[in-house]
Amino acid sequence: MNDPFRIKRLCLIGVGLIGGSLVRALRKANAVDEIVGCGRQRASLETAVKLGVIDRIEQDPAKAVVGADMVVLAVPLGAMQAVFAAIAPTLSAEVVLTDVGSAKASVVEAAKNVFTELPAGFVPGHPIAGTEKSGVEASFAELFAGRRVILTPTAQSSENAIARTRAMWRACGAQVVEMDIAHHDAVLAATSHLPHMLAYSLVEMLARRDDSEEIFDYAAGGFRDFTRIASSDPTMWHDIALANRDALASLLEQFSVDLQKLAAAAREGDSDYLKNIFTRAKQARDRYEKKDRR
Amino acid sequence: MNDPFRIKRLCLIGVGLIGGSLVRALRKANAVDEIVGCGRQRASLETAVKLGVIDRIEQDPAKAVVGADMVVLAVPLGAMQAVFAAIAPTLSAEVVLTDVGSAKASVVEAAKNVFTELPAGFVPGHPIAGTEKSGVEASFAELFAGRRVILTPTAQSSENAIARTRAMWRACGAQVVEMDIAHHDAVLAATSHLPHMLAYSLVEMLARRDDSEEIFDYAAGGFRDFTRIASSDPTMWHDIALANRDALASLLEQFSVDLQKLAAAAREGDSDYLKNIFTRAKQARDRYEKKDRR
Repeated sequence: MNDPFRIKRLCLIGVGLIGGSLVRALRKANAVDEIVGCGRQRASLETAVKLGVIDRIEQDPAKAVVGADMVVLAVPLGAMQAVFAAIAPTLSAEVVLTDVGSAKASVVEAAKNVFTELPAGFVPGHPIAGTEKSGVEASFAELFAGRRVILTPTAQSSENAIARTRAMWRACGAQVVEMDIAHHDAVLAATSHLPHMLAYSLVEMLARRDDSEEIFDYAAGGFRDFTRIASSDPTMWHDIALANRDALASLLEQFSVDLQKLAAAAREGDSDYLKNIFTRAKQARDRYEKKDRR
Repeated sequence: MNDPFRIKRLCLIGVGLIGGSLVRALRKANAVDEIVGCGRQRASLETAVKLGVIDRIEQDPAKAVVGADMVVLAVPLGAMQAVFAAIAPTLSAEVVLTDVGSAKASVVEAAKNVFTELPAGFVPGHPIAGTEKSGVEASFAELFAGRRVILTPTAQSSENAIARTRAMWRACGAQVVEMDIAHHDAVLAATSHLPHMLAYSLVEMLARRDDSEEIFDYAAGGFRDFTRIASSDPTMWHDIALANRDALASLLEQFSVDLQKLAAAAREGDSDYLKNIFTRAKQARDRYEKKDRR
């Protein structure tokens, strides 16, 4: 049977946790023929070949995209524009071009800075999945199973390119939705970018203390879960924080005010205030926990 | 063999996650003969009997402590003083009296308000363990295995009472350390009380939004771990926040300032500031992860 969505040659630029997991999943679903891996670190690409994650290596992005019918950019947000610039001259008109960046306005902006007109094959995307680990060694085929992938098509994205990108993620077991770019960035600032900032900030504040070694000695299981995301890649999160700075900074400021109010309520012994916050939070968290069991 | 630390009758006041797990562990270690459970909710005590967690029920604290050689208070911090007052008239001079409260100055203060002189048998304690769940149904014997228990003896605590309390927790597989009361409260404010406030505040802030249902739909695995502790018992945490209000409010204020700085750095595109925070946090979190693997 001739599957119109089967990928003949996928060019993966950035072979790390997300990119590696994507192609592992596609391979497992038998949805791709050949995978060309492109990246800056040769050793990491060689590991990817050994692990069977990619079929061959091409370190020059301009060459890597030649002959591919699907190009996936899985590099940090800060590297997107340079990659667009590198592949623009050799990118075919028929190729589907997508990315996995955690903030979408900045990726579209980067593409606009490179392409005179946004390609019809360009469909920005973001899989809502990941772990605190990095690198192709941490990749696994099940990462996207049952998770959501948000596509944020541009005004120029063709229906065909959207359908092909959608099909690629569905083959990984993901649930694909479409969203407006600004809305995506606002939602992700709240559910992902802000929590990462809080985890990083908390651990850094504690690490700054004179008694920091002791402090971590007396941290319990709750702390371990709470701070897990502070082990995430600093460069990647630096890029995300800058790429989505406006939405994120507003939330940080709002949250900062909330904490001052909470501190005042604790000092003043305002029982009702504390109980209301904690009770509403528990209710929402318990509801989320139930929904998330899938 | 006659074990001098064997508990003949343990009176557990407050049969929930922590108290239930303690007596399950003691039973498993064959370190106790009889367990009397005391609490306000009859149905919950009956469940505890059915689960084999306690041997019998005595709902009047004054009667429950009679004949016990070990009394453990595992009630919310806000209930400590009332329990001290209820048991003071019938407490024997030889009994060891300890508690599991998450803040220690307030428990000692509550005891001072009741007893003219703090009993020699009174040894305040705090097991650094727990889950976001509550109730005796969630209790399990392994909760304290490999975890730390902090004892904060008062000037009046006898060596014998300290040794007996220590032996009880060691029988549960815990590592017992002693700490100054104020120091305990400062350390726990940083590693436990502050993170809980952040998780509660974040979830509550998101739940307040018009798009809150959607927000939670797009939360990924990191969010789930990060906010798990926001499912903790609101009453218990209300009590903790008030009991340790000074240390906690100071940290909340300090953290609030850190977040404002981070917001400003993001807005201004201060790459070095962001990278430094994230990198130091990741280093500290990775060190902690290694240490915590036990």
